[in-house]
Amino acid sequence: MLIVMRHSATPEEIAGVVATIEAMGYEARPIPGKQRVAVGLIGNDGKVDEARLVNLPGVLQIIHVSQPYKQVSREWREDPTVIGLANGTVIGGREIVLMAGPCSVESEEQILAIAGTLKTMGATVLRGGAYTPRTSPYAFPGLGVEGLELLARAREVTGMAIVTEALDPDGAFLVAEYADIVQVGARNMHNYSLLRAAGRAGRPVLLKRGMAATITELLLAAEYILNEGEHRVILCERGVRSFDDHARNLLDITAVATVHELSHLPIIVDPSHGTGYRRKVIPMARAAIAAGADGILVEVHPHPERALSDGAQSLYPEEFERLVTELRSIARAIGRDLVAPLP
Amino acid sequence: MLIVMRHSATPEEIAGVVATIEAMGYEARPIPGKQRVAVGLIGNDGKVDEARLVNLPGVLQIIHVSQPYKQVSREWREDPTVIGLANGTVIGGREIVLMAGPCSVESEEQILAIAGTLKTMGATVLRGGAYTPRTSPYAFPGLGVEGLELLARAREVTGMAIVTEALDPDGAFLVAEYADIVQVGARNMHNYSLLRAAGRAGRPVLLKRGMAATITELLLAAEYILNEGEHRVILCERGVRSFDDHARNLLDITAVATVHELSHLPIIVDPSHGTGYRRKVIPMARAAIAAGADGILVEVHPHPERALSDGAQSLYPEEFERLVTELRSIARAIGRDLVAPLP
Amino acid sequence: MLIVMRHSATPEEIAGVVATIEAMGYEARPIPGKQRVAVGLIGNDGKVDEARLVNLPGVLQIIHVSQPYKQVSREWREDPTVIGLANGTVIGGREIVLMAGPCSVESEEQILAIAGTLKTMGATVLRGGAYTPRTSPYAFPGLGVEGLELLARAREVTGMAIVTEALDPDGAFLVAEYADIVQVGARNMHNYSLLRAAGRAGRPVLLKRGMAATITELLLAAEYILNEGEHRVILCERGVRSFDDHARNLLDITAVATVHELSHLPIIVDPSHGTGYRRKVIPMARAAIAAGADGILVEVHPHPERALSDGAQSLYPEEFERLVTELRSIARAIGRDLVAPLP
Amino acid sequence: MLIVMRHSATPEEIAGVVATIEAMGYEARPIPGKQRVAVGLIGNDGKVDEARLVNLPGVLQIIHVSQPYKQVSREWREDPTVIGLANGTVIGGREIVLMAGPCSVESEEQILAIAGTLKTMGATVLRGGAYTPRTSPYAFPGLGVEGLELLARAREVTGMAIVTEALDPDGAFLVAEYADIVQVGARNMHNYSLLRAAGRAGRPVLLKRGMAATITELLLAAEYILNEGEHRVILCERGVRSFDDHARNLLDITAVATVHELSHLPIIVDPSHGTGYRRKVIPMARAAIAAGADGILVEVHPHPERALSDGAQSLYPEEFERLVTELRSIARAIGRDLVAPLP
Repeated sequence: MLIVMRHSATPEEIAGVVATIEAMGYEARPIPGKQRVAVGLIGNDGKVDEARLVNLPGVLQIIHVSQPYKQVSREWREDPTVIGLANGTVIGGREIVLMAGPCSVESEEQILAIAGTLKTMGATVLRGGAYTPRTSPYAFPGLGVEGLELLARAREVTGMAIVTEALDPDGAFLVAEYADIVQVGARNMHNYSLLRAAGRAGRPVLLKRGMAATITELLLAAEYILNEGEHRVILCERGVRSFDDHARNLLDITAVATVHELSHLPIIVDPSHGTGYRRKVIPMARAAIAAGADGILVEVHPHPERALSDGAQSLYPEEFERLVTELRSIARAIGRDLVAPLP
Repeated sequence: MLIVMRHSATPEEIAGVVATIEAMGYEARPIPGKQRVAVGLIGNDGKVDEARLVNLPGVLQIIHVSQPYKQVSREWREDPTVIGLANGTVIGGREIVLMAGPCSVESEEQILAIAGTLKTMGATVLRGGAYTPRTSPYAFPGLGVEGLELLARAREVTGMAIVTEALDPDGAFLVAEYADIVQVGARNMHNYSLLRAAGRAGRPVLLKRGMAATITELLLAAEYILNEGEHRVILCERGVRSFDDHARNLLDITAVATVHELSHLPIIVDPSHGTGYRRKVIPMARAAIAAGADGILVEVHPHPERALSDGAQSLYPEEFERLVTELRSIARAIGRDLVAPLP
Repeated sequence: MLIVMRHSATPEEIAGVVATIEAMGYEARPIPGKQRVAVGLIGNDGKVDEARLVNLPGVLQIIHVSQPYKQVSREWREDPTVIGLANGTVIGGREIVLMAGPCSVESEEQILAIAGTLKTMGATVLRGGAYTPRTSPYAFPGLGVEGLELLARAREVTGMAIVTEALDPDGAFLVAEYADIVQVGARNMHNYSLLRAAGRAGRPVLLKRGMAATITELLLAAEYILNEGEHRVILCERGVRSFDDHARNLLDITAVATVHELSHLPIIVDPSHGTGYRRKVIPMARAAIAAGADGILVEVHPHPERALSDGAQSLYPEEFERLVTELRSIARAIGRDLVAPLP
Repeated sequence: MLIVMRHSATPEEIAGVVATIEAMGYEARPIPGKQRVAVGLIGNDGKVDEARLVNLPGVLQIIHVSQPYKQVSREWREDPTVIGLANGTVIGGREIVLMAGPCSVESEEQILAIAGTLKTMGATVLRGGAYTPRTSPYAFPGLGVEGLELLARAREVTGMAIVTEALDPDGAFLVAEYADIVQVGARNMHNYSLLRAAGRAGRPVLLKRGMAATITELLLAAEYILNEGEHRVILCERGVRSFDDHARNLLDITAVATVHELSHLPIIVDPSHGTGYRRKVIPMARAAIAAGADGILVEVHPHPERALSDGAQSLYPEEFERLVTELRSIARAIGRDLVAPLP
């Protein structure tokens, strides 16, 4: 931590900062500059409270040198985290995972039909909401536990792994009984009670970036999960809030590169929520893979025009099939490949 | 709802949209324009799913005419919601409420000292975190139920009403046993499980705007609470995310005017989290009152430089005292006044 | 244009809106809805001033149905604009153009060396700043007309086409004497005097998106140029302002798909300014091509660590060479190809 | 400047950074930390190019300690800049200036009528656009030099000072012949050719914040003007771009406090462009003064419903009159007052 003094700071003010740092139990090291003095705080164990320093006389600002997260950082662990699922799908390695399915589970017929179709097209993880967070209290909230049972049934029939969202701590444990991956959605990225529960539920966690969360905050949210003992966390970029309404969100593909620099955790991209319009989903899925994403999470519905939620951004199955072909070529163009289809 | 057709839309495409609307059970009314045709959907009961329409041939875009919220809107209820607390404080009327206190409850000595001081300065509601959401899992999370007991003790001693935050559904009911107002924080504005629980806990709810939430989304979050039967909701502007780091958040004072136009609910402003720096808190508290806010929520700590959280943005008690004097003059300049101090 | 009335609007208020519309010379068509009445304004010739309507009694809001731009829209012209340069490079067709070069022209040696290298690697357009907009008045502003002469010299030697930025109306005509493409930078996207001059300078124009410009505003800025008679406009996405500082800007790759939907103009992507860090440039260049961009504009410097500006985001020549190979494979994966190298 | 090394940086990598700094002619000072080493660069004269350092092996990031601006900073000059106009109005002192007038000058009748009215209500500076930047090439661009002559005529008749916008370098000198203050608009805050011309035109300059400009960038734009020798610069907050469309822009009132901390220049607020809706202008004008702004710039039109531009955000004269009364009370509540009306 660096305490930058004002141009006009007196020697007494500088000495005051040094004394305060030492009283806090750390070492202080003044660094004279051409324009101003800065005082380094040495020995920061992550618990320094800048509040004691920021308002001392002569202080201009506090600069943080260390990152606030630890276990998720690539400095902590150089090798990428690789997550294996029961059906053989491996996430975070050389191969790229395809997660697909409808926004919401609507009926047994719907979920079995789309799961069967998606499996033959190469997806190995089935997504589908049983508990769906909705901005309005009057919108369809999902089938609840019945939806979880239908997802489990689809796994039995197809062999696909299941990822579905939990909305609160009790829900995290319930979802973990049925699904292979527990999803924490963008609206709940800062819901620390849920993050802690997800970290104790015994399943890999898919953590979506909040709609105005920095990458640092995303990594700190993941740190909550790792800190409970669950190291199998998959991050997911799904677009951030923007000033332009041409897309539902602004999909931040650069986040893929940033996460790979800073963390050992895998990161996938959701171009469906990230754009909100079917026509934009396909180019952005391609862009995600070209940028190095470890997978995509995409909405596909047998009849998007009849979907109970998010139909406008859901692909038709035949669109998904063409997309998979393009993604395979792009993956190979950068030295990767898609996860092998299920048998 | 208005379905805008492309410039090049054919009569058949327009007829297709009309037929779909009628098949959905609504009335369709084509509106020819100089540049393009639009088709009005008449009879929208709030359940129309645009997904069936947006991808039909010839459709350019869908425009929503109705607001998605109801019970919170000023069209639903013209008169302002006025909320009375047990200690006589009235929120949402002509008089402006002062809510103040430390970020976190730290000890009996701390909370009793500051509560006594704030009472004499004119605050009638005491704020203080027992459960504090923290971006990092390694930061001080609050004293929990012990903090709630200390707040209750401060109420006994001073007569101030208590507002404190709940982080999850169980927490909402627990907080409601101790506090006069249950706070839902900015990080949880989209936590629908928590909103529903808060709406059933039997106490007025202070709902903070999420850090990238639109006013429409804030009102929809409030609608979740009203929809559970709790009509005593106080909205709170606390700053939104921005590209400039000169302040911790960008305090959107205009939200006060917007909420008063659209809704009958009262709105207060939190300049402490809204700016993040003590020197900015005072001018922005004044600005909030001048803009018409129904109150302020401000952090005051007996010794900010020793606070366990948010010390940099906490006022010294004597700063708060001067601020109250200025706020009273500003309130009177616009035909209002401050809530009378407790006896 | 649609004038939405309040729920509580009286028949007299609705009649008042109708009368005002008719007094303005347009046709009014009331559309009764379940919740409220809306009044359509028919015959909008693009000159309606909503100010006469928005404050009439009973009016809730005004909704615009038509787009504000014309000549740039795909509705105006269905076929893509294809722009040919003197050296045979074609922009906006099936093939993807590579524009590359240093941020600033620094010396004859520098620009000839890098131009020769880039040509052999497949770039056909050379970028290089002679007039460089700098946030600080104390930073290197470019070599000015000497820089233009060095660029012209590089064209003579290598056959590459030249794109370089103009900063004001006089500059636009001067740049047009030397360059094949006149660039209008992001900081000047709203500089209408410059846009008008660029539209009269007789050269194709490369128009960069402003750092907080919507796609609609970008298209309107292009409309200024087309309206002066210059139809050869190339749009360029280069990142928008964001709340996260992990990258210099937030590169909005989705803009590529949006522009292709709304406009017939070609769009390229600048991943160098769009990310600001060398390590992010390569994945984002790949993402841009995968998303369907018509080209990339990328900074390459023979010695980035010694560049006078933007060294941190400039690629080494050998990095660019590897990138071109990947881009060619990605282009072919989506049915396109790179522009053929110069002989 | 501080070069932060990676956790894993080797002694050789640290030595490499030290050697590079010394080769650049500065002093290097390694600062060992508990988690990582940082290397201070001492003697920074504002010309250090971080590009030579940021990509060296082992470097994690570069942190800037000094501010990039000088002449505008409060460290450079402690006393506030106070600007006197020919009609006796003083800007930047204890008294608050009221600048008001129509968006565009439309006719002699219009401008003389409104100027006469505003003078009697207490405004001492008349605003009015002769050259109006418009997002669309088809919108009313202003009367040009005829508008300047009408403004000069209004000054003769009323004694009010004139502020009006220039759009390009030639325009800056032309406007300076007619007006008391040359305005550089938000769209041109990064138009460095214009800033330089404005700095040489011999008149005080009103510089509006760009729609996504940080305060640092605003101060650097002002630095361009001071660097040309013109020290009489008035900054103006007018709202920044946001994700919410309830207001035209997000008015950042906190910028007033931030500018007063960092700079000696006066800052005023434009609530008309800052909100875009008449009903929001009044509360936000009050908020600006309560926060400590040195003045307001507000649109008033004799007949807003017939204005050629920005009618929806223009006040009626009688609204302005009531506002002035409120502003005077608020100014006095914080120990200031309004500039005395003209005789």
